[in-house]
Amino acid sequence: MTLQDLSTPALLLDVDIFESNLRFMADRVSAAGKALRPHAKAHKCVEVARRQIEAGAVGVCVATVDEAEVMVRAGVSDILLTSPIAGARKCSRLAALAQHLSVVVDHAEQIALYDAAAQRAGSQLGVLVDLDVGDHRTGVSPGQPVVRLAEQVLASHSLIFRGLQAYSVRASHLHEADNRAEYSAKVLAPAAETKALLERRGIETALVTGSSTGTYQADCDSPFLTELQPGSYVLMDVAYARIGGIQFGHALTVAATVVSANHPDRVTVDAGFKAFSTDRPFGPEALDLPGSRYEWAGDEFGFVYLEDAPRRVRLGDRLRFIPPHCDPTVNLYDRLHVCRGEEVLESWPVMDRTASHRTYA
Amino acid sequence: MTLQDLSTPALLLDVDIFESNLRFMADRVSAAGKALRPHAKAHKCVEVARRQIEAGAVGVCVATVDEAEVMVRAGVSDILLTSPIAGARKCSRLAALAQHLSVVVDHAEQIALYDAAAQRAGSQLGVLVDLDVGDHRTGVSPGQPVVRLAEQVLASHSLIFRGLQAYSVRASHLHEADNRAEYSAKVLAPAAETKALLERRGIETALVTGSSTGTYQADCDSPFLTELQPGSYVLMDVAYARIGGIQFGHALTVAATVVSANHPDRVTVDAGFKAFSTDRPFGPEALDLPGSRYEWAGDEFGFVYLEDAPRRVRLGDRLRFIPPHCDPTVNLYDRLHVCRGEEVLESWPVMDRTASHRTYA
Repeated sequence: MTLQDLSTPALLLDVDIFESNLRFMADRVSAAGKALRPHAKAHKCVEVARRQIEAGAVGVCVATVDEAEVMVRAGVSDILLTSPIAGARKCSRLAALAQHLSVVVDHAEQIALYDAAAQRAGSQLGVLVDLDVGDHRTGVSPGQPVVRLAEQVLASHSLIFRGLQAYSVRASHLHEADNRAEYSAKVLAPAAETKALLERRGIETALVTGSSTGTYQADCDSPFLTELQPGSYVLMDVAYARIGGIQFGHALTVAATVVSANHPDRVTVDAGFKAFSTDRPFGPEALDLPGSRYEWAGDEFGFVYLEDAPRRVRLGDRLRFIPPHCDPTVNLYDRLHVCRGEEVLESWPVMDRTASHRTYA
Repeated sequence: MTLQDLSTPALLLDVDIFESNLRFMADRVSAAGKALRPHAKAHKCVEVARRQIEAGAVGVCVATVDEAEVMVRAGVSDILLTSPIAGARKCSRLAALAQHLSVVVDHAEQIALYDAAAQRAGSQLGVLVDLDVGDHRTGVSPGQPVVRLAEQVLASHSLIFRGLQAYSVRASHLHEADNRAEYSAKVLAPAAETKALLERRGIETALVTGSSTGTYQADCDSPFLTELQPGSYVLMDVAYARIGGIQFGHALTVAATVVSANHPDRVTVDAGFKAFSTDRPFGPEALDLPGSRYEWAGDEFGFVYLEDAPRRVRLGDRLRFIPPHCDPTVNLYDRLHVCRGEEVLESWPVMDRTASHRTYA
């Protein structure tokens, strides 16, 4: 099978670049004496997770209950759900996975819900307190609010206090490595003080997890974090390529076909809003077509402007694009086609939402 | 089952608003003496297509080969694929459906590919020439280029010339009904001249298809179009609500849960880039929470700012949102939960991409 045989739009993984990314991160984090727990929300793919663990990761992070269930079913035995959730039913689904899973909390009511669910399930569920390190998205303010939640976990019937999560989405995509390093160190400082405060109360925080593809280099030097949770590094995207100082290669691309070619300055491909993430202020970038420019043209279409592109593009040609943002792009596909050059080696399922997504919470 | 039982984020269809939208469009187009062929790319749902046909539609439009295959398998017998495609394998897949399907072409090579595929399949495939009415996205320029393609179809072995497609994506979302009516009439004029030109050559165009939810009112008065292909009207979204003069109700919403509530001015819900379309310069709008404002907060998160919102929102609360753009939002889900008030009546599958999307073209 070759790339020409694939039905487009199709999601491709260049296996050599993927493996190079995989090893590079594993070696760097290992050399820093830290644990690596890659975030599976980026790839939503059991086969990728298995290879990350084979390369030395302690387990994976997930962002949803569905992802946790799929990973447990696939035999992954050490999972962290990095999103706080709410609702008794989801807590029960998670309590059933307690042997393989830890969760995060940022509110007293969540602790009560998880404790009740774990008690009903007869399980002991590992819990981290999620710190708000400046994003104000999830998490509780550093200092006393964290101590109160940690003490509530310690006083619970069926929960085990595991440590802290200190993740900054803002730090991940700042331009230039120096800015990211400076910002990450700044937002982690109150979290480190909170850890010291907990220790003075006799509460040990075995695990402190955070970091991203954008900040892992700086965070490897953090005396505070014990574990890094980067996601995008195995795949890469335009967003990370644009911020500077990111060493990973573009393993992830989307293959599209030229379906209309009636103009000298542009062609139309069969990949639009349903084929690429659209959450960034920029579109995908064509691979091997320098001087070209992609422009959105609808749900199923994109323009490729060819003004400065050296090679002629014809009806039926296959073009490959680096997606603007990897996570929501992968989320649009069911399969990741593993390729080397023009050859398709195998096809890995992206988490089957039909099978995994439970209708009722 | 109630809305509270659903695992969020979840895609909801308000059945009463849906049925009202369905009837309103069917009645209006029927009163104008035109055929209605709703575009299924908006809903990707066999159950919705069946109800559109029961309400008087002649069949449906689809945008992809996968969608065509799912619709044929579901028993829909009159389908138009509105996108030109390229590639011998996809042409073969379509030729196998020729009894139930017509396709569009905008290039001589596509005609040759389809003719060869239909000949191999021993089928007769209906073909429309796709006109470029100003979007320069797909289609061939009106006038002689259309005549040449029509004559090529007529001279082919296994293709049947059915007529013309004249669709303007630009017309669909212009602000104010008057602007849309004026623009649509303007871009359809050269297409009407092309039809006359074909007739002078003795080529009958039985079918002329086009229009959208944005222009259907004006296009009902077009002497040229025989068939209208609106899509969004059954579901609706923020994009169509904002352009003015659209009478359809918001049948489509996304249910989300408040998963973090540690700030007085905002809460965080479990619905972000993977739960809503992100191709418009605006986000979703909360239902029944006037004065609130949604802001993107990542792949799995959104902020809801509450400054001017009258009711208190708590951790675990369910909120409902009108999606920015219906088509790419539906594309993110596997099920459409049909509800009336708080009750969930049934769950309709959104086209199962795992089952339908063929790996190899």
